[in-house]
Amino acid sequence: MMSSSPQLFTLLTDFGLADTYVAQMKAVLLRGCGLAARIVDITHEVPAHDIAVASFQLFETVRQFPPGAIHIAVVDPGVGGSRRRIIAQLRAPERSFVVAPDNGLLSTLLGEEMLRAAWEISALELLSERRARSTTFDGRDVFAPAAVFLGCGREPGELGRSLELGELVTRPAAFIRRWAGEPITGTIVRFDRFGNAVTNLRVEGAAPPALRVAGRTVALVKSYGDIKQLGALVGSSGFLELSAREASSREVVALNVGDTVEVLAES
Amino acid sequence: MMSSSPQLFTLLTDFGLADTYVAQMKAVLLRGCGLAARIVDITHEVPAHDIAVASFQLFETVRQFPPGAIHIAVVDPGVGGSRRRIIAQLRAPERSFVVAPDNGLLSTLLGEEMLRAAWEISALELLSERRARSTTFDGRDVFAPAAVFLGCGREPGELGRSLELGELVTRPAAFIRRWAGEPITGTIVRFDRFGNAVTNLRVEGAAPPALRVAGRTVALVKSYGDIKQLGALVGSSGFLELSAREASSREVVALNVGDTVEVLAES
Amino acid sequence: MMSSSPQLFTLLTDFGLADTYVAQMKAVLLRGCGLAARIVDITHEVPAHDIAVASFQLFETVRQFPPGAIHIAVVDPGVGGSRRRIIAQLRAPERSFVVAPDNGLLSTLLGEEMLRAAWEISALELLSERRARSTTFDGRDVFAPAAVFLGCGREPGELGRSLELGELVTRPAAFIRRWAGEPITGTIVRFDRFGNAVTNLRVEGAAPPALRVAGRTVALVKSYGDIKQLGALVGSSGFLELSAREASSREVVALNVGDTVEVLAES
Repeated sequence: MMSSSPQLFTLLTDFGLADTYVAQMKAVLLRGCGLAARIVDITHEVPAHDIAVASFQLFETVRQFPPGAIHIAVVDPGVGGSRRRIIAQLRAPERSFVVAPDNGLLSTLLGEEMLRAAWEISALELLSERRARSTTFDGRDVFAPAAVFLGCGREPGELGRSLELGELVTRPAAFIRRWAGEPITGTIVRFDRFGNAVTNLRVEGAAPPALRVAGRTVALVKSYGDIKQLGALVGSSGFLELSAREASSREVVALNVGDTVEVLAES
Repeated sequence: MMSSSPQLFTLLTDFGLADTYVAQMKAVLLRGCGLAARIVDITHEVPAHDIAVASFQLFETVRQFPPGAIHIAVVDPGVGGSRRRIIAQLRAPERSFVVAPDNGLLSTLLGEEMLRAAWEISALELLSERRARSTTFDGRDVFAPAAVFLGCGREPGELGRSLELGELVTRPAAFIRRWAGEPITGTIVRFDRFGNAVTNLRVEGAAPPALRVAGRTVALVKSYGDIKQLGALVGSSGFLELSAREASSREVVALNVGDTVEVLAES
Repeated sequence: MMSSSPQLFTLLTDFGLADTYVAQMKAVLLRGCGLAARIVDITHEVPAHDIAVASFQLFETVRQFPPGAIHIAVVDPGVGGSRRRIIAQLRAPERSFVVAPDNGLLSTLLGEEMLRAAWEISALELLSERRARSTTFDGRDVFAPAAVFLGCGREPGELGRSLELGELVTRPAAFIRRWAGEPITGTIVRFDRFGNAVTNLRVEGAAPPALRVAGRTVALVKSYGDIKQLGALVGSSGFLELSAREASSREVVALNVGDTVEVLAES
């Protein structure tokens, strides 16, 4: 991890941008790693406490960054309680880590076998903070300092014991269902800004001919422009999504997060 | 374009900040240009698919950045269809480029004669991407890689043929109407965060005495503090705008995007 | 202030992220200080014209940044009027400045004795701007250029006369009320993203046993997870806040910004 290149951090939280929580975390990173550190916001608009959405968003993004990135993910309804804090190392890109509460946030990465190893963060006394630690903001007081610790070239094992990947908390709702030609069902995970309903169903290779949702059969198309009223397509991260022409698919059919989506077999 | 100074990129999209689209584009830029690259968000809150608003916002901002900036503008309802992708060079500042779909996004810059040259992006095989290109996210798969290509010192002409500026798609709604003492009409383009109704009418030099909108005559004032109820003034980018005292002008009079605004002659 | 380390700027405004105002300020900073300058957004979602909220947010954040930061704070309903523009130096961290309108934005810092000195910005001719100054956007035309001036190693006294701290405009609503064991009253200042009602009551050391608000007595807890329905706790910046379990406290009890909150004595 020792290198002359600046350290890259990313942040993914449900803190929003109206409060100063995100800026306080960035202040910790810059204080700890110097002004050469690079910080990229993945998003801070995860729906409050929605661990599954955040888990999918980590999957979509972390593998795209250059080697050596340290990702800080904080969607943490249990802050102040007894949930573990962890560091996980990605299989790829090399020397990439995620620092997070152990509450299922890493489920998608784990289910996709994208993690190599994990450690507990327990030696909090090694995290240099000049103030008393709060009981409500581990993002600033534990996770960002742990990221600084790694960014300074220290080893994750110095902060706590190694964990088996099987020990990590998982959320079944954040596992990907992979389509391989047989009928399967999944659910709508979230709506993106354009009103597209993104599912947990992922396609590699040829796309299925159609989906079934809310009592309707929806044909697959190649791109948004091919949609007449409601269509389905393989989104930019490989997930099946439902999209309406120039309107929210949520309004055209009454779709909701959690709705069942059935992938029809090749026929 | 070869220089030891870090490369500056800006991003202007309608992607919002709740999804990971913007972060995925930034990952491409950092992977391609190294961690020294600088990235500035112009805005990601362009109303979905509103090409005219984005076009005005490019006009307001791109000329203010240092020389050598590469601006990536993606408001792209036609993604996956047959619309061209282009690179345009600004007249000033020097060595500044805009990478965008050719759908009218550059209309305001074009109408103001701020473009020097343009090229088609067609040699996609030169854009190094390690994954299969999606049909729904050219921002990540084409525009950001094309910006990286330019940022590495390559020439735009390597990516495709030179275009006449007259070949570019334009949107009349994104052209500026310039007040020069004679009565003219324009429209309300958008409301800013403070509820000010910004028009496509631009003033250089002395301001007109009054506007007429929604059946009312509205006098020009110097600054927001001079407004009693509803006033008009020359905004910070030179556009005439309507503003209400400590309230949204939209609510005081029932103003809407697209409403006609008449500039009354000097008298 | 002369140093080979990059200059750090922070921005705190009520401009929102949908318009280009923030990007235009960043363009000024990069043009003036070079691409090595670091810019951190504190927030741009201060409620429009809410000077008290912004003042508390400056207090929460500025002391956390590394030495040498220049903070630009623009919540400025009086732009274009006769209010002063000022530079204030923090007591700590060293070589840290805030550039702002003199309208009460620095009240919390002032009340907490976190300021060392202040200067008026009046020699506008020293601020290098290549365009005519607008009457509506001092953030871009005065405050960012003044920050560049400081960032280039110039002295604040070159821009105007030294001010007594007692000359600065203050807003009583932005002063902290400190609990020291005796009953005191404060108010709700704002709601954070999670619906927590943050007060102007600050605790150092042991927390009080309970608060009284909207006719209810609310017991103090350690962390959000300890709350059954409605609870109070010491937030991450030391302020007392009211929080509801997995719901907005605003909805559980009908709380509003400005509501009186009474801290009950130790008993």
